[in-house]
Amino acid sequence: MDYPKQMKMTEKRHEPKRAANFNAGPAVLPLSVLEEAQTELLDYHGTGMSIMEISHRSKEFDALIQTAESDLRELLGIPTGYKVMFLQGGASLQFAMIPMNFKASNISADYLVTGTWSKTGLKEAAKLGPARAAASTEDTNFNRLPLQTEIHYDPQAAYLHFTSNETIHGVEWQDEPVSLAGVPLICDMCSDFVSRPVDVSKYALIYAGAQKNAGPAGVTVVIAREDLLDRVPANLPALLNYKLLAESGSMHNTPPTWSIYILGLVMKWLKSLGGLEVISQINAKKAGQIYQVIDGSGGFYRGHAKLESRSVMNVTFRLPTEDLENRFAKAAEAKGLIGLKGHRSVGGLRASLYNALPLESVQALADFMIEFQRTNG
Amino acid sequence: MDYPKQMKMTEKRHEPKRAANFNAGPAVLPLSVLEEAQTELLDYHGTGMSIMEISHRSKEFDALIQTAESDLRELLGIPTGYKVMFLQGGASLQFAMIPMNFKASNISADYLVTGTWSKTGLKEAAKLGPARAAASTEDTNFNRLPLQTEIHYDPQAAYLHFTSNETIHGVEWQDEPVSLAGVPLICDMCSDFVSRPVDVSKYALIYAGAQKNAGPAGVTVVIAREDLLDRVPANLPALLNYKLLAESGSMHNTPPTWSIYILGLVMKWLKSLGGLEVISQINAKKAGQIYQVIDGSGGFYRGHAKLESRSVMNVTFRLPTEDLENRFAKAAEAKGLIGLKGHRSVGGLRASLYNALPLESVQALADFMIEFQRTNG
Repeated sequence: MDYPKQMKMTEKRHEPKRAANFNAGPAVLPLSVLEEAQTELLDYHGTGMSIMEISHRSKEFDALIQTAESDLRELLGIPTGYKVMFLQGGASLQFAMIPMNFKASNISADYLVTGTWSKTGLKEAAKLGPARAAASTEDTNFNRLPLQTEIHYDPQAAYLHFTSNETIHGVEWQDEPVSLAGVPLICDMCSDFVSRPVDVSKYALIYAGAQKNAGPAGVTVVIAREDLLDRVPANLPALLNYKLLAESGSMHNTPPTWSIYILGLVMKWLKSLGGLEVISQINAKKAGQIYQVIDGSGGFYRGHAKLESRSVMNVTFRLPTEDLENRFAKAAEAKGLIGLKGHRSVGGLRASLYNALPLESVQALADFMIEFQRTNG
Repeated sequence: MDYPKQMKMTEKRHEPKRAANFNAGPAVLPLSVLEEAQTELLDYHGTGMSIMEISHRSKEFDALIQTAESDLRELLGIPTGYKVMFLQGGASLQFAMIPMNFKASNISADYLVTGTWSKTGLKEAAKLGPARAAASTEDTNFNRLPLQTEIHYDPQAAYLHFTSNETIHGVEWQDEPVSLAGVPLICDMCSDFVSRPVDVSKYALIYAGAQKNAGPAGVTVVIAREDLLDRVPANLPALLNYKLLAESGSMHNTPPTWSIYILGLVMKWLKSLGGLEVISQINAKKAGQIYQVIDGSGGFYRGHAKLESRSVMNVTFRLPTEDLENRFAKAAEAKGLIGLKGHRSVGGLRASLYNALPLESVQALADFMIEFQRTNG
């Protein structure tokens, strides 16, 4: 499995200096997307205006956002009966909007707490009424997902919320958790959105900040089943009201036009690669290569996440000492391998291997890890 | 008064095809800003990454956002004791955040209703508790500002809110309305922000979506006096909590990095022109040129706003018939004069003459108006 020739040729032709970008987000974008944005930055489709200078009510922008949505629908196989929104505020604003929109203030909701992000989602919901952890793996610093038997459901819960990939801890659900009948499943999909096929019909709502696999910072995608939108209280402020935002086609007010534009180019790029099945195989290969170095290091590198919970997106690992970890991060950066320092709550290193990260960057990291162990192990 | 030589030279050197862009927002941006963004789109300051691919926690982005803030502080003369935030959601989200943050749900707030935007601000506040119009000019379709004697204050109001420039109706406050002692003055400054000097010390809070004079869509600037932030309820969700957002330096979660980047370039451009006093004189000259054509047309063109309430930013005017108005808009567009159709709630035409609109575009519009009257009057 490899990137199609088209992409490689683009990279070869220009050969701009490019870092090996392991940032956790904002993160690496496809080179061809950046090049297209650069080419037409002063003049979008012959209008004599930058895309940033064009009205969001213009026919040009209308075509752009419609295409971005239909490409996303095609890629993810979003069934009819679901609305797609391009919003602002990141996942953090959705943390508050979800309880505001989908539960009365005296009804509880269930959260599967598997890392910093799901824990924060629960904390934000709890500011607005009852909400509880139906399971938590915090006692082992979120190095695994809960077993089905460890989940204690509230059958009255307004919804069940989970985080498909924990960016900081590097654990990822390979299959959706089971939800009780009648309890809508809501997913924070920020860091593995459009990295693999997903059966959207299992979800009531999916949300994702774009700045990992889908685009730049500044736009948040929300996919909501229409029947869920009937729960939205009528008097919610407009910008916090999913029903109103969905009905306006993300155009209740000025949307983040540039970020939606880049997201649209990324969708086009994903389609040109062959879609989510293809990219998921590439992603699995990339992660496999780094996990192989970890597992073959005789304990010099130790993965944070347990084997069965490992993330394909964010590979978290430790070295024998903190001093070695710091030296690793510095020496890597000196070689142009950027963004490998782990989050302080886990420590160690983290390699984020999102869709747009080229195979060459992964190979460079694998080589570096082997060489670093040889000289420091 | 004219743009400095530097800007003209930039335009001359490249001579890209540029529309005369009268869009109401998103709107025209300085050509030199677009060119700089284009040049470094693939490689920001030698990092080998696009600014969109860089972590918001990196030293590069930290320097960028600090510079954007300090340039804005310098331009507007923001006193110490004020926080500056770069947020998301546009003015429409601030419409809800302001009452959420600054008043108890049983206390009222005063709104000066002078057009679509202040009316919408009041409507959103009223979803969250009592709020009232201390004055309204809706009876004459918002063609003027209220006289001081027409404002009926609530001395117990949590704050007094006004909209400094009504983008749709084309009326603009030349001086701040008087606020009662102890009643904080809050201003939606979306469409004339950084178009002229302002005495920030008169305000408790100023907010503005960037996409008129300050940058692209996707970032909203909030300037808040620190004592006001002490009112913020502790249990507000993080992304709706001005105090928390201010204390985190707009970095509670991933900010809209690209939009802040462009805003920073626009601030640099404004400084290079000589600051807000210089741009306000240029803006006055541009608006004066169009109003002169209107006033000299013997009634063929009729300004929507009364003389003393006219906006320097958005010139709204009518023609003798709707048919003529439609033909005007179409013929103008055919000549590369874009975005002149007025908002449906006013009808007619609207020329938005923001900071970055070149004098040449204004001249082209004035010439077109005279010619159109000659052949259709």
